[in-house]
Amino acid sequence: MEKPQPEEIQQRLARFQTDLAAHDLDGALLFQNADIFYFSGTIQSSILFIPAQGDPILMVQKGFQRVKEECPLKNIIAVNGKSHLSATLRDFGIRGVERLGLELDVLPAQLYLWLAETFPQCRFVDVSLPIRKLRMIKSLYEIEQIRRAGAVLHQGFTEIQGFIKEGVSELEIDGRLGFIARREGHMGILRMRGWNQEMTYAHVLSGDSGSVVTFLNSPHGGSGNTPAMAQGASFRQIRKNEPIGIDYGVGINGYLADQFRTFVIGELPPDLEKAHQCSKEIHQLFVREAKPGSSCPELYAMAKDFALRRGLGDSFMGHGEGQVRFIGHGLGLEIDEFPVIAPNFEGEIAEGMVIAFEPKFVFPGKGVVGMEDDYVVTSSGVERLTLTEQVLIKLKP
Amino acid sequence: MEKPQPEEIQQRLARFQTDLAAHDLDGALLFQNADIFYFSGTIQSSILFIPAQGDPILMVQKGFQRVKEECPLKNIIAVNGKSHLSATLRDFGIRGVERLGLELDVLPAQLYLWLAETFPQCRFVDVSLPIRKLRMIKSLYEIEQIRRAGAVLHQGFTEIQGFIKEGVSELEIDGRLGFIARREGHMGILRMRGWNQEMTYAHVLSGDSGSVVTFLNSPHGGSGNTPAMAQGASFRQIRKNEPIGIDYGVGINGYLADQFRTFVIGELPPDLEKAHQCSKEIHQLFVREAKPGSSCPELYAMAKDFALRRGLGDSFMGHGEGQVRFIGHGLGLEIDEFPVIAPNFEGEIAEGMVIAFEPKFVFPGKGVVGMEDDYVVTSSGVERLTLTEQVLIKLKP
Repeated sequence: MEKPQPEEIQQRLARFQTDLAAHDLDGALLFQNADIFYFSGTIQSSILFIPAQGDPILMVQKGFQRVKEECPLKNIIAVNGKSHLSATLRDFGIRGVERLGLELDVLPAQLYLWLAETFPQCRFVDVSLPIRKLRMIKSLYEIEQIRRAGAVLHQGFTEIQGFIKEGVSELEIDGRLGFIARREGHMGILRMRGWNQEMTYAHVLSGDSGSVVTFLNSPHGGSGNTPAMAQGASFRQIRKNEPIGIDYGVGINGYLADQFRTFVIGELPPDLEKAHQCSKEIHQLFVREAKPGSSCPELYAMAKDFALRRGLGDSFMGHGEGQVRFIGHGLGLEIDEFPVIAPNFEGEIAEGMVIAFEPKFVFPGKGVVGMEDDYVVTSSGVERLTLTEQVLIKLKP
Repeated sequence: MEKPQPEEIQQRLARFQTDLAAHDLDGALLFQNADIFYFSGTIQSSILFIPAQGDPILMVQKGFQRVKEECPLKNIIAVNGKSHLSATLRDFGIRGVERLGLELDVLPAQLYLWLAETFPQCRFVDVSLPIRKLRMIKSLYEIEQIRRAGAVLHQGFTEIQGFIKEGVSELEIDGRLGFIARREGHMGILRMRGWNQEMTYAHVLSGDSGSVVTFLNSPHGGSGNTPAMAQGASFRQIRKNEPIGIDYGVGINGYLADQFRTFVIGELPPDLEKAHQCSKEIHQLFVREAKPGSSCPELYAMAKDFALRRGLGDSFMGHGEGQVRFIGHGLGLEIDEFPVIAPNFEGEIAEGMVIAFEPKFVFPGKGVVGMEDDYVVTSSGVERLTLTEQVLIKLKP
């Protein structure tokens, strides 16, 4: 099984240790799967202690043999539940920890309160932002995984064209995309950091489904086929001459690619076809203008201004209550990584970031059109990682 | 779109309010999707305040129109983010809240700390246990949804027999099961309450894959095809005369069914076939003995003793580090509901509980065999909800 190189994990740890020292922390205790995988190469049930200086300790609660195969760290200890945490740290001579980093954005309150009771001398500091900022810059290895995930998406978008027909349900298309993804090696989930933000592999939204507003922080939501999930595909049957918007995600070795294409059986209404063309032009503008140092709010404003000049302000990135205030987001082990190309995300893009850029337009009662592609920021600009041609995909009735 | 009856939601709320009063709480603030759905019929981005007496208030952050269609509650208020929480409660004349219930098992620490700062006069109490205990007893509506999910599983287990052939990868079978599930209306995710416990729709584990230990709290884990996911199907090709264990989950209107069957192309080695037969006999024993009032630890002990007497103690519910100490779990909106049929889960089964009962045997290097089925506890015993015949499914080479 493939895994990240030990040197790369060492570099990630070294950079995080520099951060810890800069924040005057004695170390950090990490619990969450994606973060533990990033710093150790395994997601087996573990607690990872990263001191500001010295070797980390991975305390394994289940899957010990597997951790030994997957993880290059020196100190791997089997522990019988979290109650052994302080004894284990003591055994390693770690005492007097006073300022400790935790992932407070994802750590359940119960676990936090247990830590507060177990380490009464400790002051806990949220290290989720430093971790997310560190993870924002991808290595060549990470970029390669996202490129491979993009190749699976392209396979799916190509193969599915033979199945999109009048009368087929959105759910059947969704299922086929999932089948293709798994057959090609999709790891089976799309991780998302935001709590209560749930996802399916694909959103298949035909006609008015594309303009249904839902809880998801996305310009389109879909009805789903039950209020209990309330997003994505439904039993609605696909018709001709309406937009079929497909958002599709795949993970390879942990790393996600995320792409959206618009299909139509026959022809789109002219206003929707114009909006789709505008999405393509905003992509071209992004490729022309984005480079290391470009400000995220300015990239967002540039795209929005372009849409406004085309008279598409009302449908830009959603409609009404469903309108969202971003046009792109980072991608990596989670689908909602930094940076966010948004008015309130102060910061600049930098070499090594991977960004899903998704200018989309939503027309109430008619649907969603646009394209989403993943780009890596290079030393001089951005390069597209996803492969599918940037066109409205027209199918014969 | 189908939804629970308003009367049923009112009954759930009334029961929870009795609990709140009994715990001397002024009310509870709920945030998590599954809990909010249970008490309101919607999962749109909301905060639900349930006072110990009087009408609940659903504060909606996104998806307001949709909530109005989905939710029968009287007080539905649009709020602009959680910062409006205390003002909204004040507007409703709710003051002097001193003891407030929260879902501390799932609520992120950051949100908990924000609440502690916003309501400095409040003492917070974990209400996750009362909620989970309440949700443990299912209504006829809930049981019917699980039965329907079971029918989809049966469709999948039937249809997949035409695709299980030598040389086909586990991932391809997994993908096809996902396709069938979605086509038939599976809602697209399996919710799990346990933090960091992730799941795919299916586990397809052929031969030695079935004995790979992983972090998941399950007798079988599988290798997956990457350490980043580390469970379930891999690119391993299915061979003849080896067990192919398939664990399969589906959700209909929020409610999950969970079933496991063992397939073989040709014949199983005799020791594995014997163990499979033992799984069937443990099911028969369960059906004979389990009834309202049966103790969970005793039901577990009865099954374990039976396996021990057959000389199968080493492979019962996993092998070595992978052995788990339960044989069944509750099912509902989450796949890890109460009760747990386990030595350390003090309590009795009661009418209306739905239990996935899963005697399985794991043989290192050889694989996993057994069967899992879902049962509802009736007034006098248990009744099977899942439909697939309780046999080892033999396919022709």
